[in-house]
Amino acid sequence: MKILYFGGQKSGKSNLAEQKTLEISSKKPYYLATYDNSFNDKEMHKRIDKHKLQRKEQFTTIEESKDLIKVLSKSKKEDTFLVDCMSMWLFNNIKQNEEYLINQLEEISKLDANIIFVLNDVNSGIIPFDSESRKFVDMTGIVGQKLAQICDEVYEVKLGLASRLK
Amino acid sequence: MKILYFGGQKSGKSNLAEQKTLEISSKKPYYLATYDNSFNDKEMHKRIDKHKLQRKEQFTTIEESKDLIKVLSKSKKEDTFLVDCMSMWLFNNIKQNEEYLINQLEEISKLDANIIFVLNDVNSGIIPFDSESRKFVDMTGIVGQKLAQICDEVYEVKLGLASRLK
Amino acid sequence: MKILYFGGQKSGKSNLAEQKTLEISSKKPYYLATYDNSFNDKEMHKRIDKHKLQRKEQFTTIEESKDLIKVLSKSKKEDTFLVDCMSMWLFNNIKQNEEYLINQLEEISKLDANIIFVLNDVNSGIIPFDSESRKFVDMTGIVGQKLAQICDEVYEVKLGLASRLK
Repeated sequence: MKILYFGGQKSGKSNLAEQKTLEISSKKPYYLATYDNSFNDKEMHKRIDKHKLQRKEQFTTIEESKDLIKVLSKSKKEDTFLVDCMSMWLFNNIKQNEEYLINQLEEISKLDANIIFVLNDVNSGIIPFDSESRKFVDMTGIVGQKLAQICDEVYEVKLGLASRLK
Repeated sequence: MKILYFGGQKSGKSNLAEQKTLEISSKKPYYLATYDNSFNDKEMHKRIDKHKLQRKEQFTTIEESKDLIKVLSKSKKEDTFLVDCMSMWLFNNIKQNEEYLINQLEEISKLDANIIFVLNDVNSGIIPFDSESRKFVDMTGIVGQKLAQICDEVYEVKLGLASRLK
Repeated sequence: MKILYFGGQKSGKSNLAEQKTLEISSKKPYYLATYDNSFNDKEMHKRIDKHKLQRKEQFTTIEESKDLIKVLSKSKKEDTFLVDCMSMWLFNNIKQNEEYLINQLEEISKLDANIIFVLNDVNSGIIPFDSESRKFVDMTGIVGQKLAQICDEVYEVKLGLASRLK
């Protein structure tokens, strides 16, 4: 089973995705963290540490900022992964072309493991002036549509409340 | 009863919140305006005047830009308040810490009066570069999740149309 | 019948609007392209060419960047138009006043032809600093509410998935 949680900044999407992951896992699930630790962003580190603390001992954490296939291809049918988040993965792969990214998602869709994805909604504001931000917004839409396609369930999260879209 | 209307810029959320307030009030409701009049923003003033005119004589207006408890704690069970809007309240209290803001909402949740809240959705666009805007977006999400928690009904408004989230 | 598809950047709204147009047309529908070709924007041209190719031979394309009435007033009851997109039309008419734009939509609502509209959701991000962007966001909300009012069906599109709002 593949599930997508999609929502804006501080919408509570990660919390709901974590709950869902714990609900559907028959054994200890994996937390696939896509944050690139080589960035020296104190605010982000603080956020992540707070988050890690919240997750406590319920997940086994794996860090992989770019190549999800490398981690997920070793998975077994009974494994459950929470990929938090796909926006960071996209950001870390922004220099890759569309075909490469879509292809990664197609490879992932063939795996038997349960995978819960988290994706930031950045698409409903004014179109950014700078071309890099614009590319990130566009690619979020393109990657998001593909993710929704390969997922069995898709939820939009607003204010900590989930609405099922698929 | 506590009710939240959440929506983007010019989504029609204030109009729907006003209608709801008038529907559920057994007597003349209060309009709790959170706009800080000390700002010298002509465009905003124009907007507000237009809005005031629309509300006519249906509400008793109270102005309080920061301390909602000061006003609401004097309320009685049969009173109904429209707080328009919580984004302006958050903006005016942005230097307060998260704990203070969440605590204010918890105090409000204990009151017997009917309160209808309006909140701007600013969370589904690209994450702003400047740290102040980013803080405002984050705090909108955090305050919004808490508001949704303490409310009996939550509506998202798009294009003047409300969808119930809770 | 009048139908509105509303969604963020790369949400898949144009694709769904195209499918709907083809479904409800009894004869070859018109594609009313509102893009102003006088802009020399290579990226936009590339996007448009890709889009044109996708539409193949299923539509008769008409280009009109500003005056929709000029084109649509000649329509007959059995005609179906896809107007892609109303955001570009708004952008090209941004110097017009609100009354003029609302009036155009009222004129359109009286026509017997089937019209499917596409509109960008730009309203759920942080309010832009520059006054021109802010005006575009505000006018999108105002025009969007009016469009929703004159339409029989309104859909919000996220990740290629449509939710009916009306």
